[in-house]
Amino acid sequence: MKIHGKPYRTIWTRPDETVEVIDQTKLPHEFATAVLRSAEDCAQAIKTMVVRGAPLIGATAAYGIAFAMRQEPSSKALVAAHDMLLATRPTAVNLRWALRRMHDVLHAHSHGDRFVLAWNEAAAICDEDVAVCHSIGEHGLKILRDAAAKKNGAPLNILTHCNAGWLACVDWGTALAPIYMAHDAGISVHVWVDETRPRNQGASLTAYELGAHGVKHTIIADNAGGHYMQAGRVDLCIVGTDRVTKNGDVANKIGTYLKALAAKDNGVPFYVALPSPTIDWTLASGADIPIEERSADEVLKMTGRLPSGEVATVEIAAPGSPAANPGFDVTPARLVTAFITERGVCAACEEGLRNLFPQ
Amino acid sequence: MKIHGKPYRTIWTRPDETVEVIDQTKLPHEFATAVLRSAEDCAQAIKTMVVRGAPLIGATAAYGIAFAMRQEPSSKALVAAHDMLLATRPTAVNLRWALRRMHDVLHAHSHGDRFVLAWNEAAAICDEDVAVCHSIGEHGLKILRDAAAKKNGAPLNILTHCNAGWLACVDWGTALAPIYMAHDAGISVHVWVDETRPRNQGASLTAYELGAHGVKHTIIADNAGGHYMQAGRVDLCIVGTDRVTKNGDVANKIGTYLKALAAKDNGVPFYVALPSPTIDWTLASGADIPIEERSADEVLKMTGRLPSGEVATVEIAAPGSPAANPGFDVTPARLVTAFITERGVCAACEEGLRNLFPQ
Repeated sequence: MKIHGKPYRTIWTRPDETVEVIDQTKLPHEFATAVLRSAEDCAQAIKTMVVRGAPLIGATAAYGIAFAMRQEPSSKALVAAHDMLLATRPTAVNLRWALRRMHDVLHAHSHGDRFVLAWNEAAAICDEDVAVCHSIGEHGLKILRDAAAKKNGAPLNILTHCNAGWLACVDWGTALAPIYMAHDAGISVHVWVDETRPRNQGASLTAYELGAHGVKHTIIADNAGGHYMQAGRVDLCIVGTDRVTKNGDVANKIGTYLKALAAKDNGVPFYVALPSPTIDWTLASGADIPIEERSADEVLKMTGRLPSGEVATVEIAAPGSPAANPGFDVTPARLVTAFITERGVCAACEEGLRNLFPQ
Repeated sequence: MKIHGKPYRTIWTRPDETVEVIDQTKLPHEFATAVLRSAEDCAQAIKTMVVRGAPLIGATAAYGIAFAMRQEPSSKALVAAHDMLLATRPTAVNLRWALRRMHDVLHAHSHGDRFVLAWNEAAAICDEDVAVCHSIGEHGLKILRDAAAKKNGAPLNILTHCNAGWLACVDWGTALAPIYMAHDAGISVHVWVDETRPRNQGASLTAYELGAHGVKHTIIADNAGGHYMQAGRVDLCIVGTDRVTKNGDVANKIGTYLKALAAKDNGVPFYVALPSPTIDWTLASGADIPIEERSADEVLKMTGRLPSGEVATVEIAAPGSPAANPGFDVTPARLVTAFITERGVCAACEEGLRNLFPQ
């Protein structure tokens, strides 16, 4: 998508066969990029969250394998790079998938071919992610177009939680893809951006990318969405997801469940956008999803810009008070209006998912 | 209540006929008090939020009238002090009520008696607030005692939103009064403290006062409460309120509605503690309550302690992104299990309120 008029992906190759990424640790306070020249650079970028978001992590790791093959195309080096990159974020499903794919493609080929093959495969992973997000965007666009048609020219108000935008992917994003397409198609949209405590991915990343692309939006405290739904000021909600179970339950950033409850209570449609690898066919329901407990510091501290422009972290809570920080919650399928996938829109239940993904 | 073993009220008189208050602008980063010596001092303390919370504002204003009467006990001075103090927070219902009461008491008396009368009346306002909160605490304690009896010695987990504690009153608080009484009675309680964005009254004030009194608690992001209710880790919720309409709808800090929805969805009892002056018999339902729109800066900035200990404010959101900040939302009576008032517990409906307050 665009940053102040210039089109970007989150990751791209340079003529000198290095890789450049948007340094997301600097956002939203500063726009900067980082150049990755080795497998170690890629591992470090993933570990320090210079890149984040499941698809982008997978793509970065794929280039890490390619760099390793340029340096030393042996099978031993391939396995070593695979293991080093996998250890950066051990729970990321997409990372494991991308590394496995790179390994399987290269494994059967001779050493001399491996770098070029790896480089092309990493590019293919990026392009496929863009294509999947683009499809999600097109299917979601139909929903937004229909909803906008009922607004008599008034802006369509969409609420989103956390960041399921292009910064988490290679381009387009999942939940935000339909919004970018609607905006680009001249549909008047306005996005209520939940700030998404405690890590503030809404106020920092979603607001940043919407603003940079020119999409009208307003940051709100996570507490405010229910009130705006009661007041008729939210036409629909779209969120992303980290994992969808076979029965259609949705694990997503902590707080998603509260917005889904409010949407149900006020008759506001609640959509979940997802690429199909997010579906976990092995889990029967959301009750089986383990919820990651994250650091209390994310609740107790906050990072931002001082009046001097310097970035600083402050402790915001009562000294000595403990905090707890569950990273995700589960929204029951009964609260979800529909899923928006790369193959189309379906009901949030096993039958709906099976119709689109029978294999 | 106690601060590290020493009993406090939020406002008290000193032997030299001045008034001392806890300086709440310094909390939770520092405990400090301020001495008020004149009507102007009292007005300034209210305006700059050295004192906050409806009952405490009323009490401080009452002492402001007393100071004015010591300086110049004329009727002209009485009216001038009344008007100056009223202008500090023009929308505070309790402030208007306390000033009217002081005026009416003093008006009919001779100049020579006015200071002593005013001083005693201000003390009476404080003591009455303490008595009302104490009664709320006793009625709520029965509920907590019954709930704790079902826990087989495990801690009773109570979720609260915002600050309806003693720091907002003269002592005890409203929603927190039953919790302090349960704690003091040896019942094992643990409080989930919603941080309460954007002003963070939970993480700063509620966590501070619970911690200082020795009550076990954990700060959580506002997003997390629904997940803990799904997980069976919340036994009941208690919140305060700014205004209750005739039909039992509850205006309270933004985000209260979302917690009430989650409580309903998970069969968790949801109580609202209120002193009877909070009931607005003139409004038929919550739809009639105007919702204050507050400064966007409260969403976009955050204040805390730098590693040096210095208190600083940082900008946390994407530069240039706008924010909206509704201060309150309305929880429909259908989501409220019961009201806890100074006269007892009642159903959240007009009949329930009329039974306790027939006049």
